[in-house]
This record gives sequence, structure tokens and C-alpha cells, in this order.
Amino acid sequence: MTQPQTAPARPRVVIVGAGFGGLALAKGLADAPCDVTLIDRRNHHLFQPLLYQVATAGLAPTQIASPIRSVVRGQANTRVILGEVAGVDRARRQVKLSDRVIPYDILVLATGATHAYFGHDDWEAFAPGLKTLEDAIDVRRRVLLAFERAELTDDAAERERLLTFVIIGAGPTGVELAGAIAELARRAISCDFRVIQGAMARVYLVEAGPRVLTAFPPHLSAYAARALEKLGVTVATGRAVTACDALGVELDGKSRIEARTLVWAAGVRASPAATWLEAERDRAGRAMVGADLSVAGAPDIFVIGDAAHAQADGKPLPGVAPVAKQQGEYLARLIKARLADRPAPGPFRYKDYGNLATVGRQAAVVAIGKASLKGFIAWLFWGAAHVYFLIGFRNRIAVTLDWLWAYITFDRGSRLITGDIMPKTPEPAPRAAARRPLEPVH
Amino acid sequence: MTQPQTAPARPRVVIVGAGFGGLALAKGLADAPCDVTLIDRRNHHLFQPLLYQVATAGLAPTQIASPIRSVVRGQANTRVILGEVAGVDRARRQVKLSDRVIPYDILVLATGATHAYFGHDDWEAFAPGLKTLEDAIDVRRRVLLAFERAELTDDAAERERLLTFVIIGAGPTGVELAGAIAELARRAISCDFRVIQGAMARVYLVEAGPRVLTAFPPHLSAYAARALEKLGVTVATGRAVTACDALGVELDGKSRIEARTLVWAAGVRASPAATWLEAERDRAGRAMVGADLSVAGAPDIFVIGDAAHAQADGKPLPGVAPVAKQQGEYLARLIKARLADRPAPGPFRYKDYGNLATVGRQAAVVAIGKASLKGFIAWLFWGAAHVYFLIGFRNRIAVTLDWLWAYITFDRGSRLITGDIMPKTPEPAPRAAARRPLEPVH
Repeated sequence: MTQPQTAPARPRVVIVGAGFGGLALAKGLADAPCDVTLIDRRNHHLFQPLLYQVATAGLAPTQIASPIRSVVRGQANTRVILGEVAGVDRARRQVKLSDRVIPYDILVLATGATHAYFGHDDWEAFAPGLKTLEDAIDVRRRVLLAFERAELTDDAAERERLLTFVIIGAGPTGVELAGAIAELARRAISCDFRVIQGAMARVYLVEAGPRVLTAFPPHLSAYAARALEKLGVTVATGRAVTACDALGVELDGKSRIEARTLVWAAGVRASPAATWLEAERDRAGRAMVGADLSVAGAPDIFVIGDAAHAQADGKPLPGVAPVAKQQGEYLARLIKARLADRPAPGPFRYKDYGNLATVGRQAAVVAIGKASLKGFIAWLFWGAAHVYFLIGFRNRIAVTLDWLWAYITFDRGSRLITGDIMPKTPEPAPRAAARRPLEPVH
Repeated sequence: MTQPQTAPARPRVVIVGAGFGGLALAKGLADAPCDVTLIDRRNHHLFQPLLYQVATAGLAPTQIASPIRSVVRGQANTRVILGEVAGVDRARRQVKLSDRVIPYDILVLATGATHAYFGHDDWEAFAPGLKTLEDAIDVRRRVLLAFERAELTDDAAERERLLTFVIIGAGPTGVELAGAIAELARRAISCDFRVIQGAMARVYLVEAGPRVLTAFPPHLSAYAARALEKLGVTVATGRAVTACDALGVELDGKSRIEARTLVWAAGVRASPAATWLEAERDRAGRAMVGADLSVAGAPDIFVIGDAAHAQADGKPLPGVAPVAKQQGEYLARLIKARLADRPAPGPFRYKDYGNLATVGRQAAVVAIGKASLKGFIAWLFWGAAHVYFLIGFRNRIAVTLDWLWAYITFDRGSRLITGDIMPKTPEPAPRAAARRPLEPVH
């Protein structure tokens, strides 16, 4: 019952990671004369741009995840392996999994990035990040449990802490998360509780830089900040987080926000692709790649997406889905040209179709080249674009219906707490003297 | 910011458990002159009859769960507490939670049941049951991971074990689960893998009794068994499980089925309601209740649903959703009559509207009184009845659309593995001599 071995002459392309980059590459190689192996430690491709909606109970996990096997189902030359990569043996040309090795002729690492705590990994227990479905389910549990515990407590200070939410980092994820939590608190939750009311909730968006959404033009940043304030979010720019604990965050080493729920959206660190390859890397751990996305001195090894540092006009490309996707598509063309002995395509060029971020109901910002949109029209555009890019026809329908439902009813359907109802965050020892007064942050 | 205390004259009705019974009671008391407290250790009401569909990736967890707060949102006299009950202090008339006590004037325990392993609790690690969403997500992970591992392994015996699924207990849950796993293996999975094929999968349904679905008339049991066999399920009735381990099950102390995935659907044990009350209980741990569902000597304490042993015509009522629901509705009438000083309704009478079970695509059995239905019409009836009884208009739409989609495409949309990709079942030590030859079980 073992699979017949294919002829050894057929080149073996091994892709690690089935995110936007790896999946675009695998799909681009569907009809190529090679054997494609797609390795991922999850069985699903995750549509990360909507992860914040799972974290705030707007969408269910299955709605933004597609089984990888289903996505490449029609490609006879492609096999999928669920496994965790431990390293790469460049001398033997093998990818090492925990229990086997996968030989390659061409290797593409598209392993993405994870949260970075800038040397403070102990903050992760208090301020989890948002990169996987498990992360999103965990944040959803923390947020919903905070409401439940606030409803029950008789301690006014504790209730205030439980109803205070701090989002650290005001990139698109931070902005979207802050807006969604504010909406969840003010509208959907308001009518379900008896003691707490939506207006008691406080949402802070803390950003060390001078403005929110720094990838957007300043006037859109200003619009987004205003839209957030209108939702009740306190935007605190120019404030650096200097400590996180179970009771809150410390800002600039002097003031504190007392809060039970913190979410980290402040920075990412590349996955260890560069380390596996012993290749040159930048400060964020990304592998330096050339104009054709290959690693220096290894024309058969490529790194794409958030794990790679590719440059355009002397500046690194941003760690966003369209870059990864276009790099995957480019590599598919390059590999097919190489297999056909055709000349390779020129260097990779990123086509920037623009930036989108949503702030909340009926508010979003869109920057396309020099053009920009904001408000309701931008919000419709944002919704349409995200539904369009969702992998899987079925999820598109389900997400569209869910959003229409939520729009009409203000309801959040996925308010599900699974797992332990006791908080995961370690309880702090009572701190008597160390407790600083709560200074206004804004 | 604390809630104003209601006048002490208003009787306090405390309901523990927001399953079918507790929720029906709470809803029945919506306009009653009392303060209702609904305590559950989950934030959601779970539609257990469709749990097997979550376990087999047909539906997403959120589709069969409704936040309890939303269900009773419109009832100003009802508050919801997310908490785990530790016991009941009958002398002080208080329910004890981990961090507080809830005083009651009338107490209703509707705490349901859990799996029973008949004194072999160590089997649970190998053969998990299906009572909560977490259970269903765990079974889904085990089934999907078994396919993934079978695809990868080079060991033929291990592949066979990984593709063998044993369901223990042939009540409705066991029958539905066996049918769904067989369908998942044969159809939806078949095209997604390269090495394994659907036809390699083996599904056993093991039952100690003489036939499947003993609550149904014999001719429907026979039809269900035939329908299961048609799906490729091996039905093994009259075979008792005498051991479960990481490599399979032992039957009747002599033969074995080698299997990596076991699911327990064989028996339930009541929750500790009777123990909390120090009340008389039956062998399954259910509290004995009188004709008005109250506990002997305590006219203000009631037990309903799977936690209770109520009798009709000298026989205990079955542990099914309609019994719990009708008991909840009955108690609402009784409590309202008592509060209004009206005469109490007569003893509780269960109206048996019939039994339903589905075997797989286009096959189900329905027994209503002496009438019975089977096949496609019964399957449509089953689907309509389940959608009708699903709590929440939104979930009804979502489930209907999902089923239509699955019916048209044969696709299973919720094939999501979350959490650790390593199996949770402890790996066995290699057993050299103890390994019995695999005898046919059928």
C-alpha cells in the first residue's frame, strides 16, 4: 500500500509554510513538471487579516481557515505534510522534521513571523499576541471572561481593571482590535449583562510612535484616531510600554494603566528560517535575500514573505500578505522557467496595490498610491476586498452572511468561551508599595 | 456601581445548569414575580444532539452553541452567573461556588450527566466521550490527525491502526458518530490525500446489547444496522469491551481490534447533584425525585433532566433532551402557580413525541408512537426537527446552509485541527508477549 516512487528525474520542490506566500507558490506550480511537497505545522491556511475578528467573537475560527489539503486538492503533483520543521541540512539537501527528512532540489521557506517582545518574553503571559487561531481563541476567552468576572465582582477597583483593555501597538491589527473590542463592549455586551454596562469599559490603544497606522498618510492616521476616539478608545501615541504584569501596563517607566486584559500587537520577529539556513539575517531575524529571492550563494534556496528581508529601492519590503503572495507567484514563474530551461524572469518587483485598515462599524481607511478613501465607502471597500481574498468560496459566503447579520442586528454570534473558565494569567502577589498612582495617559 | 438589591420579599429561584432543562425553566419564568439566577460553568448552551457533527467536522462549534446571556437577554428578572458549583448547603439554603455563595428560596438542579466507564476511568484517556464542545474538538483532532499520520507513516500495521476507528456504544450518538466517520473517511477525505484512500478506513461500532438503537423498534434497529453496513461500518453487537488502550480495544476478554482512535458512547453517569443534596440516588447516580420532580422531604428543591430519576409507569424516564425540556416547562408552571398561590399542576407527565436518529447521508430512523419512518424521508424529518429545535435563529440559518452545502458538495467545511498536533493519548510501552492475534469480531 505504499505510494509508488516517482522517477528521480522529476525535481523536488519543497515549500515550508502554507501561508499567503507558500500557498501562492504551490498553486502556481500546479501544472509544473515537478513534485511539490508543502509542509506546515497546521492543517489549515489561516486568513490572518481577519484574526482580530475571531478574537472579538465576530467570526468563528473555521470561517477564516481552510484545510490546506482542500486548497491543493486538484493538484496531482502536490502532497501535503503536517509536520514541524526542526531544521535544514544544506549539505544533504534535506528538510528535517521530528521523525523524518524530506529531500529537496529546490527549497522555499515561507515560514512567516511571530510576536516580538523586544527582549521581554516574560510579557507574553500577560499580553498575548495574535498570530494563530489558538491565539485568537485565547484572546476571545480573556476578553469574554473579563466581562463575566466584572459582572460578578463586588470589588470596584477590580471591576474597573477587568473592564479596562489595553492594546499595545497601533498598526492595522492593533487599530482593528481596539475598535472591535470597544464595539463589543459598548453594543453587543451592553444588553446581556445586569451589573456592568458598556459605557464602563475602557479601551486604550498604546503606541510608541507618533501616530497610529504609520504605513498610511498622516491625514488617514488622524482620521483613524478620531474614529477610534468616537468609539470610546483612548489613543495614547508616543507612549512606550516599559512593563506588563497581571494587573496592567507601565508606560514610559512612570505611569500605569490598571487592566486585566492586554493584547500585544506591537512587533514581530521572523521565524527561524535564516537560522536553519545559517544565512545572513537582519535585526528582526529575517533572512536576507537577493533580487530573485534566493539566499546568497544558494540559487536553489529561497525565502519569501515575513521570514525574508527583500528590498525595493534600498528599503525592506513590508511584512504584509500581498508581498508574500506576489513573491510566491513570482517564484512559481521563476521555477517553471528554470524547469523549462527558459530565461528567468527579472528581479522581483512588488506591486503595491494599497493599504487597508478598518476602525469599526462603517469606518475604514484605504490608501492606494496617492489616492485615499475614508469612512463608510472605505469600509465597504475593505469588506469587499477581504471577502474577495478569503480562500475558499464557502468561507466567503459564510463571512459575508455573518457580517450582514452583525450589521443588521449588532449581534456577535461567536461569543464562545471554550477551555478553562479560570484565567490563564498568573495571579500576582499583592503589591503594596510598588503600586503607583494611576496617572492620566492622555 | 453595585446593583441595587431587590426587595427581600421576591423569592429567589436558583437554577444550576443551562442545558435543555434549566434553560426551558428559566425561559418559562420570564414573566414570573421572582428573581431567577441561572448558574452554569460554561457561557453557552450546547445543542448536544449535534455534537457528533462537530466531532466529525461537519459543523463548527459556534454553530451549535448559543451564549446563555443572549438567550435570556430579554428577561429582566434573570441574571446569569458563569461559575462552577461546589455543593449545596441545605441548612443555610445556599449554593456554594468556588468564591461565593448564592442564596435560594427555590433550588433546581439541572446539571446533566457525563460519561460513565463502569469503573474503568483509566479508559477515558484512550476512548474519550462526547459531552462538551471541548470533547468534540478533541475527537475531531484525533480523527483528523489519524488521517494525517496514516498518510505519512511507512509502517503498514500502524497505518491500518490509524485508519481504524472504534465507536463503543450503539445508542443514537454512537450510531450517528460511526456513520459520520465512515462518510468522512470514504468521501470527503478520499480526494485530499495521496497515499491513503477512503476505502482503507475501517469503522467498528461495538455494542454489548443485542442490537443497535435499543430505544427503537427492532425493525428500525435492523434498518439502521443495514444502513451502517452499507456505509462500510462493521456493526458488532453482543460484544462487550473489556479493555481499552492506546493501540485498540479488547472484546469479551479474548479478541482485539487494533485501532488508534476510540470514542466512548456507551454510558452516562449523572452529575453529582444527588451527592450535593445528600439525597437518595439510583445506581447511575441520579437523584430520585417525586411526581412533582422535588426531592423527598424538600418541597423547594427539584432535580430535572439527566441528573434526575423520575418515573413514569414504574419505569425511569430516558435521559433525553425532550424529557429535560418538558420537565423545565413543567417546573416553570409549578413555580408560577406556587408564587401566585394557585393550586399546583398535577404530577409531571412526559409526552413522548418520538425518537430520531440519523445514520448518514439520506438515511435516518424515526419512531413516533407506533408509527415509524426510515430512509430519505426520515432523514429530511430528522434534519428539519434538529434545525427547528436549535436555539437561536441565526444558528438555524447557518446550520441549514452548511448542510445544504455539504449535501451538494460532499465537502466538510470545519476540518480544523487546533491545539497540539502531537497525539494526546499516551504512547504505550512496546508489548511483546501480551499482543493477541487479531481475531475477526464479526
